[in-house]
Amino acid sequence: IVEPPNFIRALDAADPVRAFRQRFSLPPGIIYLDGNSLGALPAATATRLDEVVRQEWGKGLIRSWNTHDWVGASRRVGDKIAALIGAGEGEVVVADSTSVNIFKLLMAGIGARPGRNIILSEAGNFPTDLYVAQGISALLPHLSVRAVEPGQVLDAISNDVAVLLLTHVHYKTGHKYDMAAITRRAHECGVLVIWDLCHSAGAVEVNLGAVDADMAVGCGYKYLNGGPGAPSFLYVAKRLQRELTSPITGWFGHAAPFAFAGDYQPAPDIARFLSGTPPILGLTALEVGIDLLVEAPRDLLFRKGQALCSLFVELIDESCQGYGLELVTSRDPQARGSHVSLRHAEGYPIVQALIARGIIGDFRAPDILRFGFAPLYLRFADVWRAANSLREILATREWDHE
Amino acid sequence: IVEPPNFIRALDAADPVRAFRQRFSLPPGIIYLDGNSLGALPAATATRLDEVVRQEWGKGLIRSWNTHDWVGASRRVGDKIAALIGAGEGEVVVADSTSVNIFKLLMAGIGARPGRNIILSEAGNFPTDLYVAQGISALLPHLSVRAVEPGQVLDAISNDVAVLLLTHVHYKTGHKYDMAAITRRAHECGVLVIWDLCHSAGAVEVNLGAVDADMAVGCGYKYLNGGPGAPSFLYVAKRLQRELTSPITGWFGHAAPFAFAGDYQPAPDIARFLSGTPPILGLTALEVGIDLLVEAPRDLLFRKGQALCSLFVELIDESCQGYGLELVTSRDPQARGSHVSLRHAEGYPIVQALIARGIIGDFRAPDILRFGFAPLYLRFADVWRAANSLREILATREWDHE
Repeated sequence: IVEPPNFIRALDAADPVRAFRQRFSLPPGIIYLDGNSLGALPAATATRLDEVVRQEWGKGLIRSWNTHDWVGASRRVGDKIAALIGAGEGEVVVADSTSVNIFKLLMAGIGARPGRNIILSEAGNFPTDLYVAQGISALLPHLSVRAVEPGQVLDAISNDVAVLLLTHVHYKTGHKYDMAAITRRAHECGVLVIWDLCHSAGAVEVNLGAVDADMAVGCGYKYLNGGPGAPSFLYVAKRLQRELTSPITGWFGHAAPFAFAGDYQPAPDIARFLSGTPPILGLTALEVGIDLLVEAPRDLLFRKGQALCSLFVELIDESCQGYGLELVTSRDPQARGSHVSLRHAEGYPIVQALIARGIIGDFRAPDILRFGFAPLYLRFADVWRAANSLREILATREWDHE
Repeated sequence: IVEPPNFIRALDAADPVRAFRQRFSLPPGIIYLDGNSLGALPAATATRLDEVVRQEWGKGLIRSWNTHDWVGASRRVGDKIAALIGAGEGEVVVADSTSVNIFKLLMAGIGARPGRNIILSEAGNFPTDLYVAQGISALLPHLSVRAVEPGQVLDAISNDVAVLLLTHVHYKTGHKYDMAAITRRAHECGVLVIWDLCHSAGAVEVNLGAVDADMAVGCGYKYLNGGPGAPSFLYVAKRLQRELTSPITGWFGHAAPFAFAGDYQPAPDIARFLSGTPPILGLTALEVGIDLLVEAPRDLLFRKGQALCSLFVELIDESCQGYGLELVTSRDPQARGSHVSLRHAEGYPIVQALIARGIIGDFRAPDILRFGFAPLYLRFADVWRAANSLREILATREWDHE
């Protein structure tokens, strides 16, 4: 293993959030740059899950719905996430998957904008966002999906648009939208906006309240470190909660779920966006991940994430010239998330060669190499080693020799 | 503690599935008669979850989607459930909550029956079933929900019904429908049937294939012992899988989810009813519970469940006369599930008095005492002790003295 130079060590020594790395169980010998796909395991998760399983479920049995507040977990964890994304208490709940939540919020928004017939989104948005919108336009034939290039979104906002569905940070390019400007323009046209925060919650500053955001969704298993297939969260601004209704009117969205009444009466608040019985094991693991982010000084954390990305870009600029590598992600920290994407015609074997060296990034067809820099558990030395390995692999065309 | 008489001990000694009780972690001193609300904890669950968390997630990280077949878990566990409910391979998947799955299947069925304008169900069905149906009739105004008394269901099936949604075993009364007769009558009228198996899967014999069932849903946290808020399962008969489409067209329902194509193309098979990323921790715990049921001789198991219920009814008949108790559930084992409900004007304090003695049943307003008899982990001695305690509580009006 090559040791990083002194200026890299100095960056790690000066990192004000470096202590959080020890709160994760990272496998030795691995540099994990895929926390934007599946976040790393917090050190406390296994113990906490074991406690919930053996004590709360095993010993408490049915009583734990009340004695251990399982019944309030969706809201309790939602309120913690609210603190990470600039939302208020009672504006966020954890429920279902991101896909199901996008469906619920799109349908809710469409219902609140009768007479408008467009769902506006971005061409190349994360597939599930587009797929769910397309599925709705198949159900409700007066609606169609208009997907435009990222640079055209502002101009495409018009009075016939019911809902604008955008992913704040693009999963492939790392491009970050100006949430305030787009939300403002949408509101001028009476358009409701759903922000998909999958690649931004826990990674970059998000302030839903400050931009007067309408709705948002996000996933629990990336930067929130909630584990594989962790439940998703959704946000609805308080001012909209009584106007919007979920299409999936399950019992946990009822005003009084345990009255077992015959007729559905939506909860007067954010709980109306719940549907079925909450997934307690998934919520348990997610809460451990979120507690770390709640504890961390997030301004410093997000600044470190940007510094990690910037360092990677600089090192690539310096040492990887002439190998056919192209930077996809913006050089402007304000215009990107916490991952950096590169383009190379032989991207797939290059990512495999990195993985063979214990550096885990990922590949997105046809030619994107994607590296996520989760600031809670990565070091500047990790970035340096990844860039150094990438340079060696490119210089020797290592993938040709395997 | 009063010891049960010899004939009760003889029943336990002769129980062919008695060994399965040791495969559960049951709290000492508790007789748990609420496995129909939340199943007990299998002894293997905590260890298996720990392994998935520490090894598969912690060490394997993103690679475990393939190396540990997380990506196939919804189908793998679904196929195991299929064996419990008389379905075939590729007819069941685990996904989402029961409420979300009812929504998906109702919408799919409605889409396949254009021109019909009724969702038929039972008045007094489990609330979420009715609520979800009501929510759909609010979305699609040409549809209305017709909820009839249990005895009127057969006669209410007609050519204007799109979908019939029934719970096989009633959550409150324990009443079990004749699945074959109702499905046959529905098919004569071109009606699609969704069977809600929440209170029957893992508790009574279900043979979806033999009755030519169309669709079914069920929950993982009752008799399947999958833990609080375990993911739900859904069944769609193979002959219908290409005709029916899910309204929630998330990426896991795509024919090629990892191609990241721009347009939704439903999977050609049961996978089209998946939506978001599968909840791996919930699936892990659920699989442990299901493996026990797969291993058990189910004909003997279900016969034992009926014998436990019958014994409880007989003991109540013998010893609780004159205390205002009324049997709600049928005396005919073929016409009920694996729980027994009683009615008493002071049901609530009686259930509380039982709980104070370590006997956990539950109360359903206004006057139902409900006792679930999960045959995998209950003994005939438990039934005897519960009946004996109930007699003592009634005889002394114990709740008046507390």
